[in-house]
Order: sequence, then C-alpha cells, then structure tokens
Amino acid sequence: MSGLLRSIAYCLPDRYVPSSEVDKLYKVPKGYTEQNIGIKSRYYFEKKTILQGGAEAAQKALKQAGLTWKDIDCLVAASASKWQIIPCMAASLKQELGLADFTFPCFDIDSTCLSFMVALDTLYCGLASGKYKNVLIVSAEQPSGVLNWEQPKSACLFGDMAVAAVLSKEGKGKILFSSFSTHIQGADFARIKGGQTRQLATKHTPQNNTDYLFDMNGRSIYKVSAKVLPDIINNALETTKLTWQDIAMVIPHQASPLAMTLMCKKLNIPNEKMMFTIQEYGNNVAASIPFAFAKAIESNKIKRGDKVMLVGTSAGLSIGVMILEY
Amino acid sequence: MSGLLRSIAYCLPDRYVPSSEVDKLYKVPKGYTEQNIGIKSRYYFEKKTILQGGAEAAQKALKQAGLTWKDIDCLVAASASKWQIIPCMAASLKQELGLADFTFPCFDIDSTCLSFMVALDTLYCGLASGKYKNVLIVSAEQPSGVLNWEQPKSACLFGDMAVAAVLSKEGKGKILFSSFSTHIQGADFARIKGGQTRQLATKHTPQNNTDYLFDMNGRSIYKVSAKVLPDIINNALETTKLTWQDIAMVIPHQASPLAMTLMCKKLNIPNEKMMFTIQEYGNNVAASIPFAFAKAIESNKIKRGDKVMLVGTSAGLSIGVMILEY
Repeated sequence: MSGLLRSIAYCLPDRYVPSSEVDKLYKVPKGYTEQNIGIKSRYYFEKKTILQGGAEAAQKALKQAGLTWKDIDCLVAASASKWQIIPCMAASLKQELGLADFTFPCFDIDSTCLSFMVALDTLYCGLASGKYKNVLIVSAEQPSGVLNWEQPKSACLFGDMAVAAVLSKEGKGKILFSSFSTHIQGADFARIKGGQTRQLATKHTPQNNTDYLFDMNGRSIYKVSAKVLPDIINNALETTKLTWQDIAMVIPHQASPLAMTLMCKKLNIPNEKMMFTIQEYGNNVAASIPFAFAKAIESNKIKRGDKVMLVGTSAGLSIGVMILEY
Repeated sequence: MSGLLRSIAYCLPDRYVPSSEVDKLYKVPKGYTEQNIGIKSRYYFEKKTILQGGAEAAQKALKQAGLTWKDIDCLVAASASKWQIIPCMAASLKQELGLADFTFPCFDIDSTCLSFMVALDTLYCGLASGKYKNVLIVSAEQPSGVLNWEQPKSACLFGDMAVAAVLSKEGKGKILFSSFSTHIQGADFARIKGGQTRQLATKHTPQNNTDYLFDMNGRSIYKVSAKVLPDIINNALETTKLTWQDIAMVIPHQASPLAMTLMCKKLNIPNEKMMFTIQEYGNNVAASIPFAFAKAIESNKIKRGDKVMLVGTSAGLSIGVMILEY
C-alpha cells in the first residue's frame, strides 16, 4: 500500500557535531549549550557536499518507492540552500545524479523553512490533475556555512540535512487540509541580507561580512506565530471534522526546542503526539519537516493510513498547516 | 472577456542604456555593438530597485485585471534574480507592496529563464483544481549587476525588466500543451558558480570575482536546443492538431538575436509570427517571455482567444514549450 508520500529517505551529513564542541567554541563549561539551548548535537556537511547528500537521499527514496528514474516526471528542489546562484538547485542535483539519459524537468520551489510543505502542496495539484504520476522532492540544506556565531542562540540551533520524498498519484494518501499565509510584519525577523540584488556577493568585504550571514530574531518570530497559529489549527481541525485523537502525529518544523515546547502547550497538542528531532539533529531549515516525518515512520509513530498534521513557520514570515493522510 | 492570463503589465527600469554606451566601454566605433550583436538598447534598474520595479508591475497588473488585493490567493516570484538570499523574493515583494493586511502566501519558483513559464504551468494545476481563483506571478530581473564584461558577447545581451501577470480561474483561456525538460549535458553552459553553498558569498575575494558573475556559452546552448526543440515543437503541433496557421504568435525567450533568428528558420516558424523585443530591451532572463507577451498584446499581435506558443530555453539546461489559448 502506498500513499501520497510514497517514500521518504534522508542522508545524514558526514560530520557529527556534539554540543560539547560548541561549548569549547564559546569557552563555556561542558554541558552548557545542551542545558541552555536544548540541543545535544547536529550534523554538518563537511567532506560531503550538499549535492552529494541530496543525490544520496534521492536514490534512497527512489529505491524505497520501488521505482526507477524512468518513472519520475519531475524533480523539484525545495530548500533555502542552493548549490549555485544559476542554474537552479534541482538541475544541479540532476547533474550530480548523472541522469543524462532522462529528460524530466527540474525546478526549485522556495519558501525558506516551509519549502518542502509548499512543494508538497503545490505539486499535489499536479498529481491530482493527472499532470504527474511521480514527482521527486529534494530538500537539502546546509545552514552551517552561513551561521553567525556572534548570535549563539541562533547559531547553536542549526544542523545540515538532506531529505528526499517521492510523491505518487497512485495510492490512497491525500491532503485533507492545507493553509499557507505570509505575514510581512515579520519579514525582517529571519534573513540573509547579502548575496543577491540588494547587496551583491561581489560587494562582500571583511567589514560587511555579517550581512552575508543568517540573522534571526527567534523571539519575534515566536510572537507572531503564537498569535496566528491557534486560529489556523482550530480551522484545520474544524474543516476536517477531526480532533487531536484522530491525529496520529504532529510533525512541526524543528524551529527551536523552546519555541516548540511553548507552541505545543499553546496549541493544546498532546505532548506524545509532537515529533521532536531537534535535540539530536538541530533545526534543518526546509529539511526539518520531511526529516522528522521520516524519523516518525522509522520509529513506528506513523503508519500507512494515519492522519498527520504538518505545522511550519519560515522566514517571510510564512506559516503553513497541513493535514494529510499518509 | 478574460482568459487564463487575465492581465500582464511591466515596469521599465529607470536607466536607458543605448549600445553607443557599450561601444564606448569597449572602445569600438559607434554602431559596432548594434551591428555585431543586434542589440540597440536595454534598460537597467539603477535608482529604482528590482523590488520597486516588481511592485509597480504587480500593481499595474492587478489594476488591469480589475481586481483588488483581497482577490489574490497567492503571490509567486518567478525569476532568477532575488532580493535577498533569505527570505524568498515573493515575501520581499509583498513587504515592498506594504500588504500587512493581506495574508495570502508567497513563494518562489525558479528555473532561471524559464521561471515564468514553469510558474504558469505549475500554478495552472492549482487554478484547475479549484485551489486558487487568482494568482499573481512577478518576474523581476536585474542581470545588470552580475554581468562579466570580459565576455562581451554575453554581457551586451542582457537588460533588466520587471513584469507581473494575474492568472485567473475565471475566463476562457487555457493551456493546450506544455512540455518541459532538463538536459544535464548543458548544465554548465550558463551559470553563476559563486554565491551559494558551492562557493559562499563570504569566500568572495577580488581574485575570484568572476566566479560570482554570469558565465555563458551561448553557442553550446544553441547546439543542444537546436537538437532537442524540433521534435518538441512538432509534438506540440501534432498533439494539439494545430498548424502554424492556427498559431497567432510565437513568444520565445529573448535569448540572443542570432540564436532566435537561426531557431526561427530551423523550426520553420513564419517570420512574422516570431515576437522580438530583444533589439530594444535585451535578454531579460525570466522576464523576457512575459514582457514579449505584453508587448505583443500592446501592438495588437495577440488578441483574446488567440492561440499562442511560448518557447524557452534556460540554464540547467532546460527547455519549455507551451501552447495556450489567450
């Protein structure tokens, strides 16, 4: 039996980074980062590139789906991280995979941390309309290269990750509810200012280096999200006529341990239904949600036919809630 | 009467750049660039930003569509150029438009020069399925900032441009045929290597500056395209049971005057049906196709109900062909 999400697979980055390393960097006592931020470890792509990671995840997902490359109608890269500025990440992934004999199209969908959810929601219409039979989504993220270590509360949180999923028309899974919104009140709360037309990479100097690094105000993001999310979640449950009892698991974006715990309480999500991967793997940007989904399947927390809620926030500030039948 | 493309509007960048300026830069006789490259002029965003241009085009398109912001279900930025690395371009555009009272979602679709076509094709499924009623696509491009003037054959070609289109479920227009493919044999023929994870912006130095500029091998792109396109075009006409007589206009990506002229002959497209804007506006990356479309409407070459063929090539190397009823 296969569903909308026919398969999900990930590639763990090659370097394990325990929080004791972070403690050393900040010259704080061993255990300080884990106790104060709530993160034990994360992984970084170091010798392995993000393309190699993405390609490995894609091959695993394809195999798990029981398909071959000739079955794939489209490859979409759904992540904040890219390989180059041009061409799109999906084309670079296809090149890394060496798929010269297959002409399926490649393009990117980007809504920062919500990219996977937006891609899933957008491509679902293409599956439903008969345009596609099988689509491959790859969310490969490498925040480790753009962290600002002068913002320890943000820098400690992130980990790299590559995840791939095959969506199939065939099978019983479906999206029961989806809602996405963008709230510009929070447009400056998470950003990398430099590197595109606003301030080109060629304008980089040692003096303006931090403009090219990730800048986040987690507290402000939480405030906007906490104001907006309860109504959307209630609407999701009302529209689908479901209660928390009917939801097998909630797969949230792994924003931060603190924000996730607070949100869980605020939204009345039963503790045991909230999936956490952040303690051991960090916030993996757009790869967080599919990675947590894969881990929930691995640990038998999600079975075929289960109803699963995805909840995400992203730079923009954008918010997404989805209920799907796996 | 309104169609799938309910409206298209553009914002001309603020600085007019005649080819005589380019002649001076290269210290060649006046008229040399125009005669040898086939481009008379192009426009650059200089005092005006790409966001201001995109926002202006969006407001014009909304007005032309007879809609207000509350009618818009989604804003998609479809371009190679972005404003920042994070958040996505569409969120920055919404911020520029000051739309704090509207929560419709924003995300980006990127397939370099094919971005507008891919967005049109992808969002069409969302309109068809009833997910969206009205969607706004903005293709705002500023290649002028990343040109490598040591590659005159490529650098002379490009111009900035901002175009916006409203797609509507309401109305008679539809997509009759679409085909997209990515051919990795050409993955390195058009690229900006630096600025993302492959070679971060923070690794920029005066010595490696050209890695952060646009690098193109136009001849090689032409060769692959010329090999692949005839079959796709024939397939498009056969599938829709149309002949060139039934097609009101062909709107091609404005790649280069030479490539476009050769392709026109190779594909047996009647000369008068091929839309050219490149001589006066240059190659506008993903904004080329919607801009040429808008210009064709302006000059009464396309009327409501007409069948129009879009043909594009992009970095990747990706190729797209679409026949739509306007």
